[in-house]
Amino acid sequence: MAEQEGITVKKSENFSEWFHEIIHKAGLIDQRFPLQGFLVFNWYGLEIHEAYMEYLEKLYKKNGYKKYYFPTLIPEKLLATEAAHIRGFHDQVFWITQGGEKQLEERIALRPTSETPMYEMFKLWIRSYKDLPIKIFQTTSVFRYETKHTRPLIRDREIFWNEAHSVHENLEGINKHVKEVVEIYAKLFDFCAIPVTFIDVVTGVFAGAIQAIEPYTIFPDGKVLEMGSVNNLGQKFSRAFGVKFLKKNGASEFVYQGSYGVSERILAAIAAIHGDDKGIILPPTVAPIQAIIVPIFGKDDDKVIKYCKDAKKVLENNFRVDLDIDRDETPGWKFNHYEMLGVPLRIEVGSKELKSKSITIVRRDKKLKQTIKLKDYSKRIKILLEDIQKNLYNTANTKMKEKMSEAKELNELKKILKERGGLVKTEWCGSKECSDNIKSETEGGELIGILYGKKETPKGKCIWCKEKSKHVVYCGKAY
Amino acid sequence: MAEQEGITVKKSENFSEWFHEIIHKAGLIDQRFPLQGFLVFNWYGLEIHEAYMEYLEKLYKKNGYKKYYFPTLIPEKLLATEAAHIRGFHDQVFWITQGGEKQLEERIALRPTSETPMYEMFKLWIRSYKDLPIKIFQTTSVFRYETKHTRPLIRDREIFWNEAHSVHENLEGINKHVKEVVEIYAKLFDFCAIPVTFIDVVTGVFAGAIQAIEPYTIFPDGKVLEMGSVNNLGQKFSRAFGVKFLKKNGASEFVYQGSYGVSERILAAIAAIHGDDKGIILPPTVAPIQAIIVPIFGKDDDKVIKYCKDAKKVLENNFRVDLDIDRDETPGWKFNHYEMLGVPLRIEVGSKELKSKSITIVRRDKKLKQTIKLKDYSKRIKILLEDIQKNLYNTANTKMKEKMSEAKELNELKKILKERGGLVKTEWCGSKECSDNIKSETEGGELIGILYGKKETPKGKCIWCKEKSKHVVYCGKAY
Repeated sequence: MAEQEGITVKKSENFSEWFHEIIHKAGLIDQRFPLQGFLVFNWYGLEIHEAYMEYLEKLYKKNGYKKYYFPTLIPEKLLATEAAHIRGFHDQVFWITQGGEKQLEERIALRPTSETPMYEMFKLWIRSYKDLPIKIFQTTSVFRYETKHTRPLIRDREIFWNEAHSVHENLEGINKHVKEVVEIYAKLFDFCAIPVTFIDVVTGVFAGAIQAIEPYTIFPDGKVLEMGSVNNLGQKFSRAFGVKFLKKNGASEFVYQGSYGVSERILAAIAAIHGDDKGIILPPTVAPIQAIIVPIFGKDDDKVIKYCKDAKKVLENNFRVDLDIDRDETPGWKFNHYEMLGVPLRIEVGSKELKSKSITIVRRDKKLKQTIKLKDYSKRIKILLEDIQKNLYNTANTKMKEKMSEAKELNELKKILKERGGLVKTEWCGSKECSDNIKSETEGGELIGILYGKKETPKGKCIWCKEKSKHVVYCGKAY
Repeated sequence: MAEQEGITVKKSENFSEWFHEIIHKAGLIDQRFPLQGFLVFNWYGLEIHEAYMEYLEKLYKKNGYKKYYFPTLIPEKLLATEAAHIRGFHDQVFWITQGGEKQLEERIALRPTSETPMYEMFKLWIRSYKDLPIKIFQTTSVFRYETKHTRPLIRDREIFWNEAHSVHENLEGINKHVKEVVEIYAKLFDFCAIPVTFIDVVTGVFAGAIQAIEPYTIFPDGKVLEMGSVNNLGQKFSRAFGVKFLKKNGASEFVYQGSYGVSERILAAIAAIHGDDKGIILPPTVAPIQAIIVPIFGKDDDKVIKYCKDAKKVLENNFRVDLDIDRDETPGWKFNHYEMLGVPLRIEVGSKELKSKSITIVRRDKKLKQTIKLKDYSKRIKILLEDIQKNLYNTANTKMKEKMSEAKELNELKKILKERGGLVKTEWCGSKECSDNIKSETEGGELIGILYGKKETPKGKCIWCKEKSKHVVYCGKAY
């Protein structure tokens, strides 16, 4: 299904164009579906997406979470409860107004997120402290009528995601749990070899949250991408929805809640951050095919075929391995094809390998070629895959660090954001006026928030007004 | 989350009421979501659903299928292409007409099924015979604005399902493949211990199909339930959508297609068919908990706890096992609770078991109690679970066979359908007028179709008009 021609633009020259080409040509998604902001997920992209989502689900289950499913459709009155107290999602909602040819009496929304339907049910489920904590998640899609420019996997109108929700007896409970979810997300990004910085957000906090912690990564073009959100909702939603519980002492109190989300943007980041001019490069943890065996025909073809099949049989006990043998294409074509697909290891087998009882292995990340003896290849492949995983993370992390800088003066901030982007540490007095001015002066530089998990004490002046600073903040141009 | 009180009506006395109670009290779903026809899937119901869907996905993948994901939303013009040539789904579609507060220029449908979006993409994907066959599936939900009375898990407006689609070069290709999908479905129902009869449908074939094969099961109330559909579409859709391919000889031809679906009705059937007055009874293959360990406290409590934990540690290597130890409830309460949940095996551990170095096991299906020695309990549990699986299938199959009968006269057919329902074999001339008359006279008895896979030659007369019969057909009152 993937187009066979190579990428026509260089990543370093036109990142945006390169990204659009690569996700299509590597067969992750098909963006030709005739509805703006809606993608077809090809099997290859879907398997990668499912691999990291399954890993996340395992982490959640280990932490006592259960998987649920709430309806896709939400009656308007539930969203209205939220709108009255917190904020309306109304400007971003797809509305159903007709069933068959009948006009519905009440509009129905496609879920933009599931706080409202869940909290309506929590009212029925929660009576006393014995019913708490509740920890649930669902892996599904949400729908947002985005008015901004859509971008595949970055800003779609149907978004694949995992949302988790927890309910606690008190503030200590939710505060402690928020830390645990940050740790779960840290493991998830590590699994995908995506370096992130967790920011405790100061502007643009999720409506209804008392604290929002967001993992950010930096894209090769210098723009920053919010990769998820850990929202401490305190009692804001429970007060709006009337979700109460009886405490041990018999008193009635509103519950404390949190909501947490990560999305298909992980797939975007994997493609964007690790990929090169030959295609994507997949971390072995999420690669649908970890090693591809390519036969080199010439002489002894029957023997080569048998040799390949034997190798596959041995390897498939421990790895996701495939053999490309029936297709009528040259080895060169196949090499390019699997490089485009980002398969971590290529195994070449021809008469040379037959003779020396070995296989030739080529790493996708470093393009290194080595010939190894048959007797220990299973062990060697395991080591190689682990090394690729580490190398992808380290390379990405080095690049991310190169794009993390510091600015004490406005001109410096402007220059950095214009020339290489990234996350720029600076100081700020805390006033909205200053942050608005900075954003406008830097053409989009947002003061996202402070570093999560490590206290950085402000020592200087606000980069805009020169008054005493209140926060050490991180500034970046976001997608 | 499940209510703790027992079922208040007997299965044999009021099946419908019993079914509604059981699916709620066993914690499968919550039907209190405030939108008609939309359910919350609790973790327990969702894990069962995912267990059989994962099994199905594995079977498909083994058969060369790949998992895809197509958008939930379909622009009206795609559905219109179908409507013009085949049939409109328009009377069953939820329509989106607004994005935010903006009126959309074109209505967008929630997918009622995915033929139209898929076939639109197939046009882009298929050039020549080299691109065939295509075999893909997705596990997702579909939306139907049902005007009939909704029933949880049987007729919902958001339906969990798996739909598979295949594209072939010629009629032989699709005909052969349809048989393979029937075999896959047979394995799936066997996995769930649900006996089915595959019917080659003569009335009510899926719009656009040249042949529809549907597995039917019989519910305890005598009504029959369509459990899925295997549709041979021939070239009907490809002609409507213009999906062509270049043959080896260079000629251009329309492709041959099939579409196949099974749904959450499997969960309904598992609950309805195997359950009893104490709750549901789960086939071990799909049970989220295959064995529950319940400690019996009295004396030696610390030792009992350790004994239980050790047993869990050993068993969880091979089984899905849980230990109910922290909850402040009596053993009797717990026994009732896990019987309601249909956990196949209960393991009791008290000081008696401690002394004799054994465990006491109670089967959920036969309520048999036995004490077995510690040294071989892992092996014994495996045998017991296999036996429960077989017993559930055999019991269900015996009951189904009791409800399969034959009628040569109309009065006999009326009597059988009225008194015990089921599938009644009879003969028919093939005229629509006769089948309509039979349906009206029997108050709902449909001539569903002929037996699939085994030719039954008509020898008598049409049960209605007494003319020479053309088909040996199966008649039943369907949900």
